[in-house]
Amino acid sequence: MTEEDIRDSIETLARQARAASYRLSQLSTEKKNAILLAMAEGIRAASAKLIEENAKDLEAAESKGLSSAMIDRLRLDGKRIEAMAQGIAEVAELPDPVGHVMESWTRPNGMRLEQVRVPIGTIGIIYESRPNVTSDAAVLCLKTGNATILRGGSEAIHSNRAIAEVLTKSGEAAGLPEHAIELIPFTDRASVAALCAMDKWLDVIIPRGGRGLIETVVSLARMPVIKHYDGICHLYVDAAADLDMAVKLTVNSKTHKPGVCNALETLLVHESVEETFLPMVAEALREKDVELRGCERTRAVIDCEAATEDDWGTEYLDLILSIKVVDSLEAAVDHINTHGSHHTDCIVTGDEPTAERFLSAVDSACVFHNVSTRFADGGEFGFGAEIGISTEKLHARGPMGLRELTSYQYRVRGEGQVR
Amino acid sequence: MTEEDIRDSIETLARQARAASYRLSQLSTEKKNAILLAMAEGIRAASAKLIEENAKDLEAAESKGLSSAMIDRLRLDGKRIEAMAQGIAEVAELPDPVGHVMESWTRPNGMRLEQVRVPIGTIGIIYESRPNVTSDAAVLCLKTGNATILRGGSEAIHSNRAIAEVLTKSGEAAGLPEHAIELIPFTDRASVAALCAMDKWLDVIIPRGGRGLIETVVSLARMPVIKHYDGICHLYVDAAADLDMAVKLTVNSKTHKPGVCNALETLLVHESVEETFLPMVAEALREKDVELRGCERTRAVIDCEAATEDDWGTEYLDLILSIKVVDSLEAAVDHINTHGSHHTDCIVTGDEPTAERFLSAVDSACVFHNVSTRFADGGEFGFGAEIGISTEKLHARGPMGLRELTSYQYRVRGEGQVR
Repeated sequence: MTEEDIRDSIETLARQARAASYRLSQLSTEKKNAILLAMAEGIRAASAKLIEENAKDLEAAESKGLSSAMIDRLRLDGKRIEAMAQGIAEVAELPDPVGHVMESWTRPNGMRLEQVRVPIGTIGIIYESRPNVTSDAAVLCLKTGNATILRGGSEAIHSNRAIAEVLTKSGEAAGLPEHAIELIPFTDRASVAALCAMDKWLDVIIPRGGRGLIETVVSLARMPVIKHYDGICHLYVDAAADLDMAVKLTVNSKTHKPGVCNALETLLVHESVEETFLPMVAEALREKDVELRGCERTRAVIDCEAATEDDWGTEYLDLILSIKVVDSLEAAVDHINTHGSHHTDCIVTGDEPTAERFLSAVDSACVFHNVSTRFADGGEFGFGAEIGISTEKLHARGPMGLRELTSYQYRVRGEGQVR
Repeated sequence: MTEEDIRDSIETLARQARAASYRLSQLSTEKKNAILLAMAEGIRAASAKLIEENAKDLEAAESKGLSSAMIDRLRLDGKRIEAMAQGIAEVAELPDPVGHVMESWTRPNGMRLEQVRVPIGTIGIIYESRPNVTSDAAVLCLKTGNATILRGGSEAIHSNRAIAEVLTKSGEAAGLPEHAIELIPFTDRASVAALCAMDKWLDVIIPRGGRGLIETVVSLARMPVIKHYDGICHLYVDAAADLDMAVKLTVNSKTHKPGVCNALETLLVHESVEETFLPMVAEALREKDVELRGCERTRAVIDCEAATEDDWGTEYLDLILSIKVVDSLEAAVDHINTHGSHHTDCIVTGDEPTAERFLSAVDSACVFHNVSTRFADGGEFGFGAEIGISTEKLHARGPMGLRELTSYQYRVRGEGQVR
């Protein structure tokens, strides 16, 4: 396909999705839920077909020599397909934010105003490898009345096509408008650029993947992009911390699941507790095979590698922890605001006023007092579903649930008022 | 200045503004209000100096041969300076959205969550001509705890510099952090591109000006842009409309202030009332010197120019109105969603269910029932102050008040909870 063919083909998809979004926005919650349940059944019924198509992706991945971890992420089996169907059915159970009146008031001239949640419109999702994102993203957008254009990675193209086809067919049989869920059927690199130029038809793009993908989308996109960047998360052990609690939270934040964005990467320790706390935490972390990299003052107390300047800005996603001794709350806050990624940061302290100062001064989506950084998650927050953890400050910040997939409009009713 | 000098200079300003934003976010409402009142006094006290600097801009404008309308927009006099000071003092009176707990809840494990309004951080404002924007934008950002970088147009550079200097000096004397309000002191075109590349330091850019300026910023900016595009506003006269009310609303929407974004541009008329309504409205509009451009069916009833396809997508900002006869509510909605700019659209009808169908199907920031489109305005909505009317669907849609200049963060408090 030439770049022009790609562009034309994507423009057609985008225009159709926009038209579908207007029909979708008018569906009742009951109708959308019925469609979702039909899709869940459709996925279950198509299990054999999905496994068959997935096998083509697995074969290609093996012949390309992808790592076994990547191949595992690609794989669909009976259990994963059932989990996908289950996930769709659970979204049907969640409350629908669309139509919710956020605020209402009356003006002195008698005009009645309402601020009402409405769908965003048309959402582009650009993602890598795992085929279940095709289903997860499409159904969250559908529940919130949005049309979706999906652009998955080339490794999962057969699986993605098969999943999208099942969702569309089973959904349309239950009343899903045509073109409400569209998968770009090819994976040429130019398709990302073409999608990013469709600001006439697409209201937002959400890239799900590594930093490289997000950067590419940010530099090309003319429409808003909801970014999910790194989590360089900190835990600050204050002078007034319960040190046993601090050890427990450090170990859990670092080792519970090191490869995710809400895992701890840097430990900050107030100088007044360095002598007691550092040996305690070092012992507990070493039991979990965590490699430690400390500042000079840390290394004066415990034996570990030296942290370089780069360490303070690194998301290890691994069993590595950098440690720095600071002389004040202000120094801790300053380090976090300068070197962190504004994702999730925690203070451990028994002193309320100190905690409150930390919570209000740290410029991060999630600021925690005496809980593990691992709780920065839509499910743990009680959102029921999560499209990701946004590192944006506008529109959606932190864990994004269904509500963050909506916009609003002002509805004003009167009796002929003029200015 | 070379492009590199410009870039370096703007990067320094942006880095300083980011640092200032952290100090600003910690100021109490009382402190911010005291600073605002000091600024208002500062502006009043500097009246002579401001008029002197403004004279340089006026002289340059005259020698460049700018239109008298543009020169009038540039002009500062005693009355306008007092209005500027008054505007600042009024912002001090408004409630502060920062710190407001939007929602709070407790999880089964005992964690207590709060979603709290916080400042966005650092806001870039790029604007044209009118020097009072320097003050209006800076004080709205200050009230919401945001640092501001202002880049005004070259025509008003002397006035802008003088206003920014007064705000900064009088504000700092009352406790404003240094670098919290920064005006780029030069107006080279390259400064727009340089500012748009500062996504490390700037959280958002708000361009205030014509379509050309906004398009330039959208294509260059790596950070979110809050756009204020055209208003191609519609009024749909339904079969069940009170026709006298429809005439009154049409005339007010079109002629009350034709040069603004919430003025009416296209009138849609249900076919069942074309014979009665079109002659009534034509007579009333002609009394106000409005030029009419109609579709074929309109021209079969009243005498007017023919509307071309281009007319449906034109924001006249003038005493011109396009008119189209439609055969159903659906056709009206479809016309609006296709040709409009998703700004403000109104239905005139006495039938509630028809009105509700219109309000929920029209994809616009403001959807009105039986009120003039001219009410699409932050002041008329009761917001107290307005930074503009956003045509975005994400973050801020429609009239933007102080609340739309904030972000939020999740504050989570516990007793050592781990996963």
